[in-house]
Amino acid sequence: MTATGSPATLLSAQALEEQLRAVGEERYHHQHPFHRLMHEGKLTRGQLQAWAFNRYYYQKTIPIKDALILARSESPEFRRAWRKRIVDHDGEPGTPGGIEKWIRLAEATGVPRDLVISERGVLPAVRYAVDAYLTLVTKHSFVEAVASSLTEMFSKSLISLRMDRMVTHYPYLSSSLGYFESRLSQAPEDANFALNWVKQNAKTRAEQDAAISALRAKCDILWAQLDALYFAYVEPGWPPPGAFLPRSIEG
Amino acid sequence: MTATGSPATLLSAQALEEQLRAVGEERYHHQHPFHRLMHEGKLTRGQLQAWAFNRYYYQKTIPIKDALILARSESPEFRRAWRKRIVDHDGEPGTPGGIEKWIRLAEATGVPRDLVISERGVLPAVRYAVDAYLTLVTKHSFVEAVASSLTEMFSKSLISLRMDRMVTHYPYLSSSLGYFESRLSQAPEDANFALNWVKQNAKTRAEQDAAISALRAKCDILWAQLDALYFAYVEPGWPPPGAFLPRSIEG
Repeated sequence: MTATGSPATLLSAQALEEQLRAVGEERYHHQHPFHRLMHEGKLTRGQLQAWAFNRYYYQKTIPIKDALILARSESPEFRRAWRKRIVDHDGEPGTPGGIEKWIRLAEATGVPRDLVISERGVLPAVRYAVDAYLTLVTKHSFVEAVASSLTEMFSKSLISLRMDRMVTHYPYLSSSLGYFESRLSQAPEDANFALNWVKQNAKTRAEQDAAISALRAKCDILWAQLDALYFAYVEPGWPPPGAFLPRSIEG
Repeated sequence: MTATGSPATLLSAQALEEQLRAVGEERYHHQHPFHRLMHEGKLTRGQLQAWAFNRYYYQKTIPIKDALILARSESPEFRRAWRKRIVDHDGEPGTPGGIEKWIRLAEATGVPRDLVISERGVLPAVRYAVDAYLTLVTKHSFVEAVASSLTEMFSKSLISLRMDRMVTHYPYLSSSLGYFESRLSQAPEDANFALNWVKQNAKTRAEQDAAISALRAKCDILWAQLDALYFAYVEPGWPPPGAFLPRSIEG
């Protein structure tokens, strides 16, 4: 039975995709007030520091998350497709990956590289949310693990908007947007593969529903990170004991 | 070496205890603005509902956390002492334990028992913080797992104050404070055992420092839960998508 009490029949691939897209409309963090402020040019440099500094913890966890997913797959074909994500984030000798590009963005906000990498002062709530992502891809079914990556279906328009607004409102970041630049093409490719895989491999209605829930759970993980940032650095603006404090920029 | 660069010598039992107590002074959630509002009588009934409803997720996790610790001990003597905690929270036939008492408190705020138990609408950030506690007692050293329980050293005065203020400010809760009543004697007993155990079993300075860090980490877990409640239900007052919404009380 579904939540509404009707008999649970298998969704068509198209209906499943529609339900997944509906989760994005409802819960993806493009709607979050922290992002709204960012795109309206209303964040201070210190608030952007806090954002870039904390989100590093998420960024550096991504290839670990992808390695955990890789480790669960029995299919060389799946693994061949999925390993690209690890390369994208970790880079290759001489070619910076997503993590390095994120560090450069954080540096451009005014946080020294060493402090970023030290993770000293990352908001506990950000840490817990990101770690919950690792739990999700480890302890839930493999279909759910893959489906949780589908937030990438929604990231392209958010990233396009962000790049545009950052150049306008935060010119000191304009030459450090390499991370987003790369994600513009990487994310849709990855999302496409994962979406097709979920459509083909969620073979029962229960598995389809679990995939939808996993995407919702992933949206919650992204949302909670921004809630924590907003609470600590915007309103009421109370970083917990030991948290990162924005640094003044020497002009 | 310690953080300050001086050689790391073993702390005396007393010095270790002092450092543990200092963590409580600095980071225990008696200082949290949500608790301050609570004790000043400034929370609405809906905010108390949100608090009791969400904290149920913490309460119901406690005996699971204690069972995980129990499972890691090789000592029947330790396990005999520690199992009391599970009895305290789960109760005995005919005698309600802490979880049942917490449900009654939540009911007194106006949240139906079934909704409490369903956990439907628990703030994701609360869930992540509580789950991080399970990770802490599972993946860190056994000394750290035990030391993380030492927040109980600080709970007695918080609970005494709370009971007093609840009777004054929220009279509709006064006959449902059984949970706190029991904790007044249980927590200090448990804390006493755990403190002595940590003093005896943290045998190197590194282990002592790890015990102090674990207590700090546990304080962060408690603090983050209240940050999430404050953000969602006090200021700015933005519950994330799908979260519990306070219910009106029929008079």
